[in-house]
Amino acid sequence: MTHSNSSNLNVKDLSFINDIKSMAVIGPSEKRNFFFLRNHQDSFKGKVYAIHPRSEEIPGFPKEDIYASILDVPGEVDFAFIAVPPKLVLHVMNECVKKGVKLVTIFTSEFSDAGTEEGKALEQELLKRAQNEVRILGPNGLGLFYPKIGLAWRQHFPTTPGSIGFIAQSGGICNIAIYSSIELGIEFSKVFSFGNGADLDFVDLLYFLINDSETDIILCYIEGIKQGRINDLIAILNNNKKPIIVLKGGKSETGIKAAKTHTASVSGDRVIWQTFFKQYNVIEVDSLEQLLHTARLIACYGIFDAKNLAVLSISGGYGVVLVDIIEKYGLKVPPFPLTTQNEINKKLFMPGTSSNNPLDFAAQFFAIDSVKEIIDIVLSDKSIDGLILDLPGFYLSFPPRIQDLSTFYNTISECLNLGHIHKKPLIVITQYLTRLNSIHDFLLKVKQRNVPLFGDPLEFIPLLPKISNYFIKSSK
Amino acid sequence: MTHSNSSNLNVKDLSFINDIKSMAVIGPSEKRNFFFLRNHQDSFKGKVYAIHPRSEEIPGFPKEDIYASILDVPGEVDFAFIAVPPKLVLHVMNECVKKGVKLVTIFTSEFSDAGTEEGKALEQELLKRAQNEVRILGPNGLGLFYPKIGLAWRQHFPTTPGSIGFIAQSGGICNIAIYSSIELGIEFSKVFSFGNGADLDFVDLLYFLINDSETDIILCYIEGIKQGRINDLIAILNNNKKPIIVLKGGKSETGIKAAKTHTASVSGDRVIWQTFFKQYNVIEVDSLEQLLHTARLIACYGIFDAKNLAVLSISGGYGVVLVDIIEKYGLKVPPFPLTTQNEINKKLFMPGTSSNNPLDFAAQFFAIDSVKEIIDIVLSDKSIDGLILDLPGFYLSFPPRIQDLSTFYNTISECLNLGHIHKKPLIVITQYLTRLNSIHDFLLKVKQRNVPLFGDPLEFIPLLPKISNYFIKSSK
Repeated sequence: MTHSNSSNLNVKDLSFINDIKSMAVIGPSEKRNFFFLRNHQDSFKGKVYAIHPRSEEIPGFPKEDIYASILDVPGEVDFAFIAVPPKLVLHVMNECVKKGVKLVTIFTSEFSDAGTEEGKALEQELLKRAQNEVRILGPNGLGLFYPKIGLAWRQHFPTTPGSIGFIAQSGGICNIAIYSSIELGIEFSKVFSFGNGADLDFVDLLYFLINDSETDIILCYIEGIKQGRINDLIAILNNNKKPIIVLKGGKSETGIKAAKTHTASVSGDRVIWQTFFKQYNVIEVDSLEQLLHTARLIACYGIFDAKNLAVLSISGGYGVVLVDIIEKYGLKVPPFPLTTQNEINKKLFMPGTSSNNPLDFAAQFFAIDSVKEIIDIVLSDKSIDGLILDLPGFYLSFPPRIQDLSTFYNTISECLNLGHIHKKPLIVITQYLTRLNSIHDFLLKVKQRNVPLFGDPLEFIPLLPKISNYFIKSSK
Repeated sequence: MTHSNSSNLNVKDLSFINDIKSMAVIGPSEKRNFFFLRNHQDSFKGKVYAIHPRSEEIPGFPKEDIYASILDVPGEVDFAFIAVPPKLVLHVMNECVKKGVKLVTIFTSEFSDAGTEEGKALEQELLKRAQNEVRILGPNGLGLFYPKIGLAWRQHFPTTPGSIGFIAQSGGICNIAIYSSIELGIEFSKVFSFGNGADLDFVDLLYFLINDSETDIILCYIEGIKQGRINDLIAILNNNKKPIIVLKGGKSETGIKAAKTHTASVSGDRVIWQTFFKQYNVIEVDSLEQLLHTARLIACYGIFDAKNLAVLSISGGYGVVLVDIIEKYGLKVPPFPLTTQNEINKKLFMPGTSSNNPLDFAAQFFAIDSVKEIIDIVLSDKSIDGLILDLPGFYLSFPPRIQDLSTFYNTISECLNLGHIHKKPLIVITQYLTRLNSIHDFLLKVKQRNVPLFGDPLEFIPLLPKISNYFIKSSK
């Protein structure tokens, strides 16, 4: 069942994942109030079975769908979520093989992650029992979140499918990313938590997402890679056309040790990894937040070059600081060409404003129609790749001299949409600390219109050169 | 009226500021719906007069407090906010001198900030007319926010006085900082927006705050310093015992030009400034957000050394990433001494946990009493300077297996208070993207108990070595 092609690529075939129609939770725990069973039951769009040798009743779950063994289930079972104690996993695996289950998640931990010889041996034995017939996510993993079919290991996971794939060893990282996606406005095609990666590993899952028609952007959190997999990784990266963004865990001395305890990964030297990512045009970031924000930027505007930016602020001082940060990260805030500056000057009529780049609107911001005209002029200029706009929340909540707030908000929305019209990134900062409740609906609309909204310039400015470099390298 | 001491320090005496009892708004603008008059009227605890040569009635403002000239006001006027057109400013200044006004804010712009010879000359003439009798904040400034007496140029400014002073040229930067302080939980003693700094400049105001008994921490946003003031700055820094945190605007090539347009400042070479700040143990940061967050950390715990940190997470992967970030910024996450680790091990009973540093609680986090015991053990360890705790919002909103949510929340609060009990910084991350409405009240309480709460590790981890270095240098 491993997949081979002309280059002798050693990756597993996972194309069946897009056809999963039925599932079982093996080992629903009464002590945990049937946590994983209930979560899957609430969201999965196909058939869910509960497998427990002793439970004959589970409150709120159909009695006729509870079986003592997966072998007793009359229909097919494509996927199983296994949460039995470690010593029972081998037996359960035997039955899954017999039943023809295609994919299992093994949530159970204390395999190679325990750091003991016993744990390692158990993991090897598990692999042997699976006979390459049943593919495994885990052990010590949360498996697969697949919103299109409602496959979700936790409650309140988002239900709208998108085109961002995510691969992580850590289930906790997945939880944070999945819940965060709702607020951020990104949507996942599939999320994999592969834990110890005994069977399916980073390389297999990356190969799957690269070839998955439901996935356009790929995010990864990896702590390490198994020995002997690097050639396969290189082969699939060589043929990849999708943007891949990676957060590498275990880069520092203590981080390497912690990663070893966490998922038994050998995370290796940070410089080797950095060079590797650079060579294969993989975008590397430093935090989970940066991983998600990079995805958001690309989801809103595609990949882009943002080497030459315009800055627009209401506070001249804040504009100066933005320029400093932007140039610190190697991007430019170039002066506008004279013709552009002259056009802008015609629209500026209040004292305290500045028509060059960075643009300082001062109180003229509240003459919002002129703001829209000026942003249009700026984004029409061929020498400008994009615009960063500072919009503190209190100027929206308590705008002076505005009679008709709803027209004011609508015009701001039109301003913010100009990035999409000019096909250039327009990025908004509304400081987290200035987001009053009264502008919640406005900010929500900004998000829904696919305008990226940040709360701190340092949250996204370091990401722009990464995206720009990716754009330049991938355009070659 | 300039202040001299043994070292021939050339700074102006501003001690009268703490005794301001009455004020006037000169030039309340009907077109702007009397914006600055109304704002001051709403909040100032003393007497407010309106000065306008033609207005005889201002809706909602006492008719008997409107005068054509400040000279007509019967009582004393300590402070005046001037917002008349540029050509009237000289006349108004003459009258303020006659009246014995001690301090004025000149909001009017188009002086040296206009970049013209005419503007520069007007500013010089203004200074001459003030005769060192009236001290000036501005022109092109918003002046003084002084919550203790309700002196506030904008509506909805916070009303609780604190002990953080802030000096900025930019009024917009002040607005963002002041509104942000409410959400962040820091409180200001005084905020100065000094605009072009024609009279009172950064050095004068810094000297005042260093000697102000109402101020313990000093924040600054500066774009430049006037020629000939550097020796005075050095003299006052040499005698300073308060933590000073600076955001320097105009560090990049374009930023320098923008600062010149903004407040006619010559901002100079970034390396010279960096060296200077380092030499005089001034903490330098890169963004307004970092300026405020540094103040928050110091306001919560005083200055501290955080070279050796413990990390506690619910997701092992997130813990690994935290360690990488912490060590990237030159701090350590050292292994716990064996005795401490043994003590922790006695309290850990669930699989998937890790008792070393970084601590991985996994699902045992919901056995919250054990978390409290373990934090107590960790902070009792002499080799640990502080703790960073990751607390994603969804684990608080949808905690599994928790019957009594209010007891659960209370115990978490007790956990978070252990930093104060052990007099070591305990810092919480609850990702912005995971802050559901349902935990708003809980997060508010965390803030009110002076526990610093961040939404992104990169928001504060780069600040910890800065505070630690300040601590070490100032302890010498």
